[in-house]
Amino acid sequence: MTTTPDRAVPDRAALRDLLDGRWGELRRASRELLGELTPPPVHELSRDEHRALVFEQMQVLTKGGHPLHGFPSEYGGHDDVGGSVVSFEVLGYGDLSLMVKAGVQWGLFGGAVQALGTRVHHERYLPAIMSLELPGCFAMTETGHGSDVQRLRTTATYDPDSREFVVHTPDASARKDYIGNAARDGRAAVVFAQLITGDENHGVHALVVPIRDDGGDALPGVTISDCGHKAGLNGVDNGRLSFDHVRVPREALLNRYGDVAEDGTYSSPVEGAGRRFFTMLGTLVRGRISVAGGAGSATKKALALAVRYGEQRRQFTRPGSDDDVVVLDYLAHQRRLLPALATSYALHFAQEELVSALHDAQRDGEVDDRRQRELESRAAGLKAVSTWHATRTIQTCREACGGAGYLAENLLPQLKADTDVFTTFEGDNTVLLQLVAKGLLTSYRDHVGDLDTFGLVRFVAESVVSAVVEHTTARSIIGQLIRDAGDGPLERGWQLKQFEERETHALEGLGKRLRRGASGRRDAFAAFNAAQDHVLFAARAHVDRVVLEAFVAAIDRCEDPATAALLNGVCDLYALANLEADRAWFLEHGRITPARSKAITQHVNQLCRELRPHARLLVDAFDVPERWLAAPITA
Amino acid sequence: MTTTPDRAVPDRAALRDLLDGRWGELRRASRELLGELTPPPVHELSRDEHRALVFEQMQVLTKGGHPLHGFPSEYGGHDDVGGSVVSFEVLGYGDLSLMVKAGVQWGLFGGAVQALGTRVHHERYLPAIMSLELPGCFAMTETGHGSDVQRLRTTATYDPDSREFVVHTPDASARKDYIGNAARDGRAAVVFAQLITGDENHGVHALVVPIRDDGGDALPGVTISDCGHKAGLNGVDNGRLSFDHVRVPREALLNRYGDVAEDGTYSSPVEGAGRRFFTMLGTLVRGRISVAGGAGSATKKALALAVRYGEQRRQFTRPGSDDDVVVLDYLAHQRRLLPALATSYALHFAQEELVSALHDAQRDGEVDDRRQRELESRAAGLKAVSTWHATRTIQTCREACGGAGYLAENLLPQLKADTDVFTTFEGDNTVLLQLVAKGLLTSYRDHVGDLDTFGLVRFVAESVVSAVVEHTTARSIIGQLIRDAGDGPLERGWQLKQFEERETHALEGLGKRLRRGASGRRDAFAAFNAAQDHVLFAARAHVDRVVLEAFVAAIDRCEDPATAALLNGVCDLYALANLEADRAWFLEHGRITPARSKAITQHVNQLCRELRPHARLLVDAFDVPERWLAAPITA
Repeated sequence: MTTTPDRAVPDRAALRDLLDGRWGELRRASRELLGELTPPPVHELSRDEHRALVFEQMQVLTKGGHPLHGFPSEYGGHDDVGGSVVSFEVLGYGDLSLMVKAGVQWGLFGGAVQALGTRVHHERYLPAIMSLELPGCFAMTETGHGSDVQRLRTTATYDPDSREFVVHTPDASARKDYIGNAARDGRAAVVFAQLITGDENHGVHALVVPIRDDGGDALPGVTISDCGHKAGLNGVDNGRLSFDHVRVPREALLNRYGDVAEDGTYSSPVEGAGRRFFTMLGTLVRGRISVAGGAGSATKKALALAVRYGEQRRQFTRPGSDDDVVVLDYLAHQRRLLPALATSYALHFAQEELVSALHDAQRDGEVDDRRQRELESRAAGLKAVSTWHATRTIQTCREACGGAGYLAENLLPQLKADTDVFTTFEGDNTVLLQLVAKGLLTSYRDHVGDLDTFGLVRFVAESVVSAVVEHTTARSIIGQLIRDAGDGPLERGWQLKQFEERETHALEGLGKRLRRGASGRRDAFAAFNAAQDHVLFAARAHVDRVVLEAFVAAIDRCEDPATAALLNGVCDLYALANLEADRAWFLEHGRITPARSKAITQHVNQLCRELRPHARLLVDAFDVPERWLAAPITA
Repeated sequence: MTTTPDRAVPDRAALRDLLDGRWGELRRASRELLGELTPPPVHELSRDEHRALVFEQMQVLTKGGHPLHGFPSEYGGHDDVGGSVVSFEVLGYGDLSLMVKAGVQWGLFGGAVQALGTRVHHERYLPAIMSLELPGCFAMTETGHGSDVQRLRTTATYDPDSREFVVHTPDASARKDYIGNAARDGRAAVVFAQLITGDENHGVHALVVPIRDDGGDALPGVTISDCGHKAGLNGVDNGRLSFDHVRVPREALLNRYGDVAEDGTYSSPVEGAGRRFFTMLGTLVRGRISVAGGAGSATKKALALAVRYGEQRRQFTRPGSDDDVVVLDYLAHQRRLLPALATSYALHFAQEELVSALHDAQRDGEVDDRRQRELESRAAGLKAVSTWHATRTIQTCREACGGAGYLAENLLPQLKADTDVFTTFEGDNTVLLQLVAKGLLTSYRDHVGDLDTFGLVRFVAESVVSAVVEHTTARSIIGQLIRDAGDGPLERGWQLKQFEERETHALEGLGKRLRRGASGRRDAFAAFNAAQDHVLFAARAHVDRVVLEAFVAAIDRCEDPATAALLNGVCDLYALANLEADRAWFLEHGRITPARSKAITQHVNQLCRELRPHARLLVDAFDVPERWLAAPITA
């Protein structure tokens, strides 16, 4: 596999089309729709003005058909789940407040009604949700329970006399917090609460609860407050909701996975409160996948800004001449931007594959448990890796633009501030990577949530975990490349093998360590906790392997030789920069020699030099609408 | 050397006093003065309101005597350079806009008049600068030249007929940019310009140029614009200045290092334009040292917030019980916060030592060139390392507080936004580390700036660089510890030895590499550029060694055994987490075995567990005024 891009410069359109992939037409249409919006001078707007503007732009999106993609055709939608994620992702090139607000309304709120409700809810709510007549909230997180949703403490107690549920916030820590659409616009909320009927708690369920009247005032028993200013995303009206014995009719319960009869009898198609809970949560997996996509877009935009600036900014003369050096010609500058750019390419293809998997699972109707769990695990893993990549890369891009990058007019400060929460919302990344590791350790044996730490450690202690890497899609090319691989760092098969062995070895080692810990005198928590860094490493190694394979598969699909040659270089840079960052691990485990380790660093340097002339093309192919890139540093 | 902190819990006051160090009394008084100010709800203020408030608070600082520390006693100051840096550092616990504005007025503007001017300027300006009657700017950076100040393009051309200088901005790229105090308050500016007399350019000099009249309007020929909104620090009025043939009297030239006689004859006590320029710049070294200190304070405040939250936030039950786990009990949470906290301790002591060195050099009057160059190099290195540590750690603290950390009311967003520019202002960190490396390669043979890349590579090629580490202060203890060291990772001598050998080996390797590069066919730029990652690594290794030694020296000064025992554990964590992050290098160079490498990781985990009970004490000892920590997450 050659790493030097072909002399034939690939066509920007060909590269863009490969990136656009399966939903190419929809991506182009979404970019056009976004391009119709005027970028607001966010930093010059008050919070109220920004919120008002975002709500106006939501109307423009509605008119442009944006909300329709993911909803059922019988209510006017397009039945295109993948398309709904992709159109959200495209909004990541614009004002991220608008993206998040759209995600709250149509993805989280509308998505919950769709996935957890039944026909009666769909008929009543979906048209009004799509048309934005009914702005709504997804009220899951509580002040005291963010990551540990299963233990949230809002209650919905059935009263058979009135055939109503009583929704109640027992104390301040059970207050719904950080809820988008709550502080200003929401009229209703999907409220997650412990469902109690006849003194029995059936676990967390969701109900549609009206929160404001037509005049916009909070309904009796509902207390709404404003989360106030945030680091970014101030066009989204996050707020807090408390309920004081608020009564809603029995039909408010989104009853697809659990229902209460008039007399208070509980029934569910899913046995076990824990299993039921995770089945419900699983239907909401699209939210995490969407965040990963949105983070990807914001990162691409930051890279586009930094690369354009790096290509025109000059500083210090070249010795022996009067020419100032273009800063992107400095190795240190290349090393900051180009491996990050290569990683954005890799994550893009992994994201595309994940969206396809989600779409196909949905299309196929009831999928088997294992397939669903794998999907959830991949969503969790890619969300964590993509959002950390966003945080790190956007920071780097800001620094790479120096003082200019600190000025609001150059867009990077807003990108940084808006995306900063992505690492902790829709699942804290550290918690998500642990879910990934638990899934791997148990071979997706059961819903990871079902197995608490104690159960997990016991399970691992009792079984022999033989980590067998399963390639995420049937791709003969991966196996073939590994089998045919020589021993050079620029051989794709060698790279794939390193990624794969890092994963299997990390997992096997983790299994051993947990068994050892559990058999000793320490409790299960201590055993798991002592290995927590190892847990996170193993999960990360898994995600990285999946990402590399997605990149390889994308190049394999590419029919244009010049594009494929360029992408091969980009893939080399992704793979080797990733291995370089982890080279201590490979050295510790005797998998590479010190000489090989140093050679990898030299290869990364060399790849940076080779790809530098193509940096502009690589960011141009992201096709960020020009008006959303307009800034003095790109002028 | 024991790493387990003594069972006797050290006294918070003892720890605080050790941290307060040489300027303890001044630190306490400065904290009290800061505590008198009311923390403004920065995010609720418009930019204009924030600027106005900061200017008001500048008056409070003035009344409190804050500006006096660094100025000469003959004009009412305290002749206490170290104190001026320390009092600036304390402001880092408050609104960072106020800190930066104070730094611009009294440190940069006042400092330039003091260091570059002579008696006539001191008499005329210093009292008005201290009293804030004359708000002023430090107009060095231009749109086209940030890092490469020597080549800035504003001109000051002497006109012997009128005995005036004509200050002129030849084109847009020569416009003064990002200038603090320019957009709103500044009445005068110290303008850096190429000094031309009789058609000869004598290089960059500084002149005092009035920019606004008493009514606040721009003076004729001066164009002032506003940099507008920034990521943070919006209480500072950064602006742009252009000059259209603005005439100032001959006496406007700050003439300590270069003067122009009435007839236009140029004279200077320093020979050579380059050498003169770097001598002038060298007198301004305090700015960089101050930024490192301010970054340190902001980082400490972020750690105080995150540790307090981490001690009370609970999430997920402990298996087999109903208790929720305090998040700081998770290993992953400890690993995010505690090594960063240990590093803040290490950097604190290194900063204190650097401030002392600056203070003593100033007190001793004319110091020899080598001592001055070392001081500049340490300032550059510590500024880079401290500000990157700030950026990374404040980000981590935000994430460690989850959604709560994203809310403005919890202070972390403002800390992040305000400090973000520290890595690129007062010298871009990447450029600064290269200055450090050049100083080391040439053994401070000459002003690093004098030696361009070409000269440097030639110099290195011609000489045999034998990197001999010189301990930054006479500390017999360092040598003793190294000589007595056994081979355990918890032995301080072993740790010191690793830091030292990393530095010497990196430097020697770099020298060899540059010689090889220069002797080949490639040009000097290519040779240096190809080794740029190595250059940055060597500089970083140097700074890290200096920092560790400062920490060891501080513990050696500590008379309270319980405090010393705790600090020994903190120092172990700093040293081993630093080595862990670089363990690939040690493995590549055969300096540690794979088993030792893995053991270091286990030691870091163990130290995190041991120090976790002391985390609160360690942040409390920073003594951030409580009203500046007040936030819902610390309630």
